[in-house]
Amino acid sequence: MIDSVRLSQQLKTLQTITGPGKGINRLAFTDSDWQGRQYLCSLMEAAGLSIRTDAFGNVIGHYAGLDESLPAILIGSHGDSVPEGGNFDGIVGLLTAIETVHSMKEDHFIPDHPLEIVLFMCEESSRFGAATLGSRAMRGELSLAEIHQLHDAAHHSLFDILKARGLDPEHIESARYTRPLKACFEVHIEQGKVLEHKSLSVGIVTGIAAPTRLMVHLHGCADHSGATPMDLRHDGLCAASEIILAVEQTAKTACNPPVVGTVGRLDLSPNAMNVIPGEVQLGIDVRSISAKARATVIAGIRASISQITTARKIPYTIEEISSDQPAAMHPSVIQLLASLCEENQIPYDQLPSGAGHDIMHWADYAPCGMLFIPCRHGISHNPDEYADLEDITRAANILSQAVRRVSACSFHWVDPQ
Amino acid sequence: MIDSVRLSQQLKTLQTITGPGKGINRLAFTDSDWQGRQYLCSLMEAAGLSIRTDAFGNVIGHYAGLDESLPAILIGSHGDSVPEGGNFDGIVGLLTAIETVHSMKEDHFIPDHPLEIVLFMCEESSRFGAATLGSRAMRGELSLAEIHQLHDAAHHSLFDILKARGLDPEHIESARYTRPLKACFEVHIEQGKVLEHKSLSVGIVTGIAAPTRLMVHLHGCADHSGATPMDLRHDGLCAASEIILAVEQTAKTACNPPVVGTVGRLDLSPNAMNVIPGEVQLGIDVRSISAKARATVIAGIRASISQITTARKIPYTIEEISSDQPAAMHPSVIQLLASLCEENQIPYDQLPSGAGHDIMHWADYAPCGMLFIPCRHGISHNPDEYADLEDITRAANILSQAVRRVSACSFHWVDPQ
Repeated sequence: MIDSVRLSQQLKTLQTITGPGKGINRLAFTDSDWQGRQYLCSLMEAAGLSIRTDAFGNVIGHYAGLDESLPAILIGSHGDSVPEGGNFDGIVGLLTAIETVHSMKEDHFIPDHPLEIVLFMCEESSRFGAATLGSRAMRGELSLAEIHQLHDAAHHSLFDILKARGLDPEHIESARYTRPLKACFEVHIEQGKVLEHKSLSVGIVTGIAAPTRLMVHLHGCADHSGATPMDLRHDGLCAASEIILAVEQTAKTACNPPVVGTVGRLDLSPNAMNVIPGEVQLGIDVRSISAKARATVIAGIRASISQITTARKIPYTIEEISSDQPAAMHPSVIQLLASLCEENQIPYDQLPSGAGHDIMHWADYAPCGMLFIPCRHGISHNPDEYADLEDITRAANILSQAVRRVSACSFHWVDPQ
Repeated sequence: MIDSVRLSQQLKTLQTITGPGKGINRLAFTDSDWQGRQYLCSLMEAAGLSIRTDAFGNVIGHYAGLDESLPAILIGSHGDSVPEGGNFDGIVGLLTAIETVHSMKEDHFIPDHPLEIVLFMCEESSRFGAATLGSRAMRGELSLAEIHQLHDAAHHSLFDILKARGLDPEHIESARYTRPLKACFEVHIEQGKVLEHKSLSVGIVTGIAAPTRLMVHLHGCADHSGATPMDLRHDGLCAASEIILAVEQTAKTACNPPVVGTVGRLDLSPNAMNVIPGEVQLGIDVRSISAKARATVIAGIRASISQITTARKIPYTIEEISSDQPAAMHPSVIQLLASLCEENQIPYDQLPSGAGHDIMHWADYAPCGMLFIPCRHGISHNPDEYADLEDITRAANILSQAVRRVSACSFHWVDPQ
């Protein structure tokens, strides 16, 4: 039985483990993060998990199955926070995972497959400018060279920071996770408004929508706003405005699977009341769980930019600054989670994750599934972040039931068509 | 006869009278401005003008007419510059005015009406954040209170600065110009591209298009760019983009008289690649020589803003931060200048001035006329500012002929219908 009182107490304790500042401050590998990690280790031990750590500091709690030679089931999330973050981001994933095991122990339930509960280190990019480093280390995608390269704002290298924590970055390749997995789960707050908007308690994630990011440089002509007639202008901001609306429109027309397109950054020069903007830079972020749908939208946006700038005679360049691969959740895992929601009469919907999560690194390694918990007003990375204990408990129940079902050696995934 | 060699030499000398920095640095009342003023006084004296100064430091050079009881003809411009400005802004107005008188002296031409050549102090807003202070003092529109209030970046009050130059700010009201005028002229570089674009040597200004300035605050919703579906957004920047294009379109459709509308300032928050912009501020600048045409465009823009924000459910406020009165040049003066261009076979056109000038303060005092000289690529307030000596000479010729014609006591303006 999932114990919501225990979950509530654990959340309250974690609320107190934080550095100076508003909300939660547990930047990766800081004292408060390390203290939070120790507390979470103690919860793992109390739940009956035997703990090991890897060269990067990731914590793997093992719960023995009846047949230890079978593939494991991995459930994890992160314990670090952004500066002035909230008490639910990452944490609800770890607590529901640990509670899943704790309830098994209390119920004297022994799964056929072993379970591995993972506390991923350094999921947030706030300290080193790079996200999900713990998962990347476990997937063998984090090199010693990069560990030397990455620095925090105080110019401390990640290497030195790992060493100071008694970790073993020189042998980062030893962190590579090689155990076969039957399934991989993560629970996380939505960090969006969709579930709240639809009054749902649970979201089943269809995939992690990775962004493609473009920086568009428009070279308009900065002229006097009074002395330049409308027909002699090459207004960089007017061109930018047409592009911004084209991004919105192009993303809107792609709806199956959905694509989101955003211009979140705009810098203009000289940005003065009486000067027509000349140089304008736009940062475009386009995401989908389908790389193909995303590519179609990007192509549409590029065509619009070409058309708009040609009509306005404004030279431009487009720089692709990043393009990550979306990660699909496994259709059979999605199906299982949906059936469990229905069996438990929990209102749910399927939705993509717009933000990145640890689990995206595991989608090519094992059948993956992810549950979202609604968060109030969609607010996250903010002291006002809040998720309801009832919703957290519901998600823990679904997770627990899913793990119990999948951990039977008689359970087999159906391969996607 | 207008002496272009003399004009050229005077321009070369002024090029050397500047403070540290690129281009011309003669901020109002600085040593270099004062030195430039002394040099221009020496040119006035050489041209046969008798000089007086007023409480604000404006220099008025008097050239006696045959009948000193007749209204005077005033010709003026400014000698100060912006930081890192050019050698033509203001200066070409003073040099062509002085040359007009100098040529009369050499030709032994004595006008019926007296002439007054005025060096207006502190036309640029660069030092005190307020423009055309010398003209305002002469029109009785600059109070002692404001002189105490205005400060430069080094926190020196205009009052102290005037005192340090031996001027008499306590009696600023004595600077008020009360002599009746038959006409008022100013020559200035265009600071725009219209004349160059049309390959014209002279522009006849129809009026000074004063700006109305609005600040629009859009209160959109800053959400995660990945986690917020397109239909749940209240994107401040998308709303701003529609408004920017509405400003452009609304100004474009008003063409007789023309109106220009510009969004030159845009500030957005948080301005991050992965966040939908929430708060956005737009600075809108709308200008016309017709207050009525400008009001029509402003009303159209306000209606668009209301419509756009309603559709997007984004709260907003509009702040009118300034609205100055446009100043019409006198139709008969425009007519006279146009006739002279035709007689001299100088290609010209009529055009509004988008920027403010000293003469705008005289339009309600006397029939006013203004000539524009093309400036290369429309560049001004910049060390690259450049006007051709031939164009300057042509403008001096037209000015000189206009003054000679108007200064005859037999010449009378026809009142506009």
